[in-house]
Amino acid sequence: MNKRILFVVTTICVGASLWAQRNPYNNPVVSPQIAEDGRQVTFSVEAPHAKEILLEGQFMKGTRPMTRQEGGVWSATVQIEQPDIYPYSFIVDGTKISDPSNVAVFPNERFKASLLEMPCKEALYTVRDVPHGKVSYHTYKSSVLGMDRPLLVYTPAGYEKGDKRYPVFYLISGTTDTEETWFKVGRANVILDNLIAEGKTKEMVVVMPYGNMMNGTPMPSSMEAAKMYTVFANELTQCIMPYVEQNYRVKNDRHDRAIAGFSRGGGQALFTALRHLDLFGNLASYSAYLTPQVMDAYFAPLFAADAMPLHRRLDFLWFGVGNEDFLYQDVLRHFDYFDKKGIAYEKLITGGGHTWMNARHYLAETLQRFFNAK
Amino acid sequence: MNKRILFVVTTICVGASLWAQRNPYNNPVVSPQIAEDGRQVTFSVEAPHAKEILLEGQFMKGTRPMTRQEGGVWSATVQIEQPDIYPYSFIVDGTKISDPSNVAVFPNERFKASLLEMPCKEALYTVRDVPHGKVSYHTYKSSVLGMDRPLLVYTPAGYEKGDKRYPVFYLISGTTDTEETWFKVGRANVILDNLIAEGKTKEMVVVMPYGNMMNGTPMPSSMEAAKMYTVFANELTQCIMPYVEQNYRVKNDRHDRAIAGFSRGGGQALFTALRHLDLFGNLASYSAYLTPQVMDAYFAPLFAADAMPLHRRLDFLWFGVGNEDFLYQDVLRHFDYFDKKGIAYEKLITGGGHTWMNARHYLAETLQRFFNAK
Repeated sequence: MNKRILFVVTTICVGASLWAQRNPYNNPVVSPQIAEDGRQVTFSVEAPHAKEILLEGQFMKGTRPMTRQEGGVWSATVQIEQPDIYPYSFIVDGTKISDPSNVAVFPNERFKASLLEMPCKEALYTVRDVPHGKVSYHTYKSSVLGMDRPLLVYTPAGYEKGDKRYPVFYLISGTTDTEETWFKVGRANVILDNLIAEGKTKEMVVVMPYGNMMNGTPMPSSMEAAKMYTVFANELTQCIMPYVEQNYRVKNDRHDRAIAGFSRGGGQALFTALRHLDLFGNLASYSAYLTPQVMDAYFAPLFAADAMPLHRRLDFLWFGVGNEDFLYQDVLRHFDYFDKKGIAYEKLITGGGHTWMNARHYLAETLQRFFNAK
Repeated sequence: MNKRILFVVTTICVGASLWAQRNPYNNPVVSPQIAEDGRQVTFSVEAPHAKEILLEGQFMKGTRPMTRQEGGVWSATVQIEQPDIYPYSFIVDGTKISDPSNVAVFPNERFKASLLEMPCKEALYTVRDVPHGKVSYHTYKSSVLGMDRPLLVYTPAGYEKGDKRYPVFYLISGTTDTEETWFKVGRANVILDNLIAEGKTKEMVVVMPYGNMMNGTPMPSSMEAAKMYTVFANELTQCIMPYVEQNYRVKNDRHDRAIAGFSRGGGQALFTALRHLDLFGNLASYSAYLTPQVMDAYFAPLFAADAMPLHRRLDFLWFGVGNEDFLYQDVLRHFDYFDKKGIAYEKLITGGGHTWMNARHYLAETLQRFFNAK
């Protein structure tokens, strides 16, 4: 078992990004504004009638009051040492809003947040001068849910030019996220482009489904969650995978299929792979777990004393979690269950919490490990 | 010259849409909520500390006060007779915000609005049970602007299966819009899918660039606007078109190329086509114009007494504008200029203003007319 503690990499980060460049020069309020040192960030919002505005951002704990400037524009400046892409919001007299001046929006069903992308040439989220894949938005018919559903698919640069088949990775986002979140927040396409260009990951097709199964959002520790995961497993294997295999040149053996997800998507990935070990050889869970109750109820035969151990039925089994994650103890309980059953797995325990900064990190780690069985 | 006044089509509209279905059942606040009659819409937002909240929406003039319910949720119910996709916002104590409960966001650089999609089976914006094309997000290198730029491309259903070449349509959105606005608000892909399925438009590739040329947003009536249009014309012809022609199977003669845009994008389309008549045979302007000054300064030879009339150098030349558009008088001045020069063109004058409801309507009209020269 491979346990690593993440240390914060301090890099000299320069260069602007695609998204930072998009602020039109004539916008009356420019926000966020990043100083030349790349670390000092000023957030601004025009709200002449507000009484109090707080800045909330995942680059700091808690909130910070913003100050009213002349003309009714409120601002706050913060120093952020670790370059990353951070969600943030303004709380205007108690109402949380996204930054009106920022085009980069966090796709989510419930909250409205914006994204601060800090310039960092070395970061995997930065668009570099490498061949770029593309992300395609599809509409497919779900017989399981009885509706049209959205689906995003990343194909690497050069996909169109050849006729070879690619490994395929099903990547699922979290509760109240949408099918866009791994693209717009996770920057899965940019990370893939960069890792492929560095020769650190195999070229692959990445499929990003909409994880909401339209039957509520049960507590992840409940047995109701497993019922929802069952619907997802059916949706993925009966609707999404046939659609993808019909429309993309993907390999169709389990060694060349991976599944992973963040938060609820991690639970859905774990459940789906355990239910369909014939279909998936590579499995990763980002900040997610299954409960002992769910594993006993649904997968007892897999963990029986005389069963072939799970790690011999999978090519790759990996968990990433932050030690400040509010689900950390639940993930440790999952580890404990596997340990007692003699299941070997890899784990990466980092700092940080239940964040997309961690999700991106886990994605980058596992992309370099998938599809290496052969 | 073909002048039609739009009459409001009253259709019995039933059926839910992809987007309406996305509201998770357990969301604490569901907004917007559409009654069974498909016309009565309730908007809600949780803001326990607000003093006043106004609803602003393009389905009505002005604003309407929202009422505080128990628990700090504010609501307003409106009756909307004409099904469409309407942008709307909440004004919370003077600050305009998007609807926190609504996933459908209006992509824009400056304001944050949400989208009300009214269920209407017959509307061209409704996802129907027809073959669906896809929309792909690209990153290309702009030598004109010296940066990476985003680009969206629609390909019709079946594009991947064959090897035929398609006509190509360059479709540009308005000031402070992004490359996503024709997709997310204009629903260009859905309209194309439906019109293709009805046999009312040719299968085509649609290219949606990011129209912001990063040098400010000059007044559309100014000579500075023409300078910005020049940069756009270079960007399109020197960077975007070569990229598209290298990566997609598109035809490369002017009869099979169209260009159009809404608002600033319409100005960019007019200017680019007039500057490159060898490249574009089909030209449409949605709620846009060029000034007599710009036409005199840049295109005098085109309008000289002995020049071949513009309508004989183009296969299709079309204008759409609403008679409540704040640019309506400017568009009439453009018509007057063409009339005096003996240039024939088609125009559609509708009700309504400078809205995306009209932009979608003009798109649907012109899609049925492009590429009919041969």
